[in-house]
Amino acid sequence: MGRAPLTVGSSRDITRELGYDIDLDRAVELIRKSNLLRVGLQAPEGLKRATVAIARQIAKETGSEVIISGDPCYGACDVDLKLCEEVDLMLHLGHAELNEGPEKVLFLEARMRDDPRLAVEKATLLLTAERVGVTTTIQHLHKLAQVMEVLREHRIEGVLGPAGGRVKYAGQVLGCCYSSAKAIEVSEYLFIGTGQFHPLGIALATGKRVVVADPVTCNVSEIDPDPLLRRRFGTIVRASKANRFAVLISKKHGQKRVDLARRIKNLGEANGKEMFLIYLDNIEPDRLINLGIEAAVSTACPRVALDDAAKYKIPILTPPEFEVLVGERPWEKYAFDEME
Amino acid sequence: MGRAPLTVGSSRDITRELGYDIDLDRAVELIRKSNLLRVGLQAPEGLKRATVAIARQIAKETGSEVIISGDPCYGACDVDLKLCEEVDLMLHLGHAELNEGPEKVLFLEARMRDDPRLAVEKATLLLTAERVGVTTTIQHLHKLAQVMEVLREHRIEGVLGPAGGRVKYAGQVLGCCYSSAKAIEVSEYLFIGTGQFHPLGIALATGKRVVVADPVTCNVSEIDPDPLLRRRFGTIVRASKANRFAVLISKKHGQKRVDLARRIKNLGEANGKEMFLIYLDNIEPDRLINLGIEAAVSTACPRVALDDAAKYKIPILTPPEFEVLVGERPWEKYAFDEME
Repeated sequence: MGRAPLTVGSSRDITRELGYDIDLDRAVELIRKSNLLRVGLQAPEGLKRATVAIARQIAKETGSEVIISGDPCYGACDVDLKLCEEVDLMLHLGHAELNEGPEKVLFLEARMRDDPRLAVEKATLLLTAERVGVTTTIQHLHKLAQVMEVLREHRIEGVLGPAGGRVKYAGQVLGCCYSSAKAIEVSEYLFIGTGQFHPLGIALATGKRVVVADPVTCNVSEIDPDPLLRRRFGTIVRASKANRFAVLISKKHGQKRVDLARRIKNLGEANGKEMFLIYLDNIEPDRLINLGIEAAVSTACPRVALDDAAKYKIPILTPPEFEVLVGERPWEKYAFDEME
Repeated sequence: MGRAPLTVGSSRDITRELGYDIDLDRAVELIRKSNLLRVGLQAPEGLKRATVAIARQIAKETGSEVIISGDPCYGACDVDLKLCEEVDLMLHLGHAELNEGPEKVLFLEARMRDDPRLAVEKATLLLTAERVGVTTTIQHLHKLAQVMEVLREHRIEGVLGPAGGRVKYAGQVLGCCYSSAKAIEVSEYLFIGTGQFHPLGIALATGKRVVVADPVTCNVSEIDPDPLLRRRFGTIVRASKANRFAVLISKKHGQKRVDLARRIKNLGEANGKEMFLIYLDNIEPDRLINLGIEAAVSTACPRVALDDAAKYKIPILTPPEFEVLVGERPWEKYAFDEME
């Protein structure tokens, strides 16, 4: 059979309207070759509406039973381990493998089709350095050669930071890990992608200037971390008035930091705060309402505190922000919460 | 120390405002005696705001580390197994043990203080039989002697159905199990408790008349299952127009019915429907929206389909209702979805 028929005939159809390429043929081949009877299928929210069609296709092509994970999925840190127990192979769509990933999981990255060249052309007008760190998220990683080419045409040297730790590819950044960016000596970064969270993370983790080129909208911009920092300072001040803190620990295998939670609990208690360890899967406002706590420190994904703050009535801090609150860390040394 | 000091001094204080008695001393004694270092604490939503105070008390009395489960909890079917992995003992508040419960869990039932006698007095005016099945939920079970006494004063013989299966106590009913009621030969039931779900379950599971005596409000009423049946018939008709069904499988250890889900999937496919197995923890409207399905059959807790129907945009059926839809079961043999 080879790859072409399925890609052209079906998986391409399924994901075309979403604007992604996903190599389902790899999954079909593996299932057929190993005669797997049961297959799990997990996707982040942006790909969830493709799961039913993908499940149909895999069942049709392989004869295996497909079980879809219905819970939210926030990254490769969030493989559905309970579903893994029920199946022979787990297909996890959209994310690159973290190095410590669980067994039985085939990570099928989702590659966006958008051509970044026009956005990068525009971004060169904002770049000031001759040597620039080039960063992106997994959806655009296969377009980095094109990005580098445009930079070269403009006599800018693009530098990719190394893979390592949670980061699978050179130049890749994760919401929780900017090690590839931090590893290179540059005065300026170009980020290829959508949204503000990752480039803000690069700016805060490196302290350097970050220019964003969005291949979907073709918009370019320079990141200004000051509004976020001002909001976070306000949140720390608000939390400093609280006495009763939750220390949130995530159940997700790649977001679970129990030792850090214990350290934060001890730090709070040593500073006269009441600290309660709370273990939970999806951190959502409903979950915290009935607990009667006044503030929280999240040791889960940094997006909980930084990106979802507006959803919560109580202030939620990252661990480094709580260190600022109790005076263990000067505000001038504010650190973005990263995971090793 | 004995039990008295803690009960009077602290646990009573903690749960008094909630109107419940919980025997925390049993937990404290066990933790002390076995020198347990880490304790998990899980409670249903109605008791969640007591967990922080209970955690504080247990930590103070025993020196152990307490981790609170922050996820929703819907019954003894829903023990936080991931938290169990982190602790030496799990305290599960509010529910009676199911017989197949996991290890390491101490079930601390919550007993409501409300005196049922006045409500039962009023209920005797609605009861017509001389022999009545007496049923209740775990919160009021310790008051059954008082209930029986009032009935005796009115020359009514109260009969308790046997424990067995998921049911721990004679006379107890669960939202998903009415075996104790079904096991006795009576023409009429008295239900002691709050809410409509359990007495509706008794009425549908037995086909008999059910009188409710609510010890909290002192209201009494006769259960009329017809409005629910009419709504469910409408839901089945609405679902019959759908082609693409999700078969929902719960991850909760006491709600997980994978074999039933497979049977329902096969039954649907044999009747020309597209059926997709969906595995998830908390079944909530958000979870189903992105999947693009048109209807669902829930093999989880029967409350999902029957009690939460208004929350969902798509029709959600119980397994017996889906059997009606495909013509495997006549409407006249409508069955309440019970778990073994």
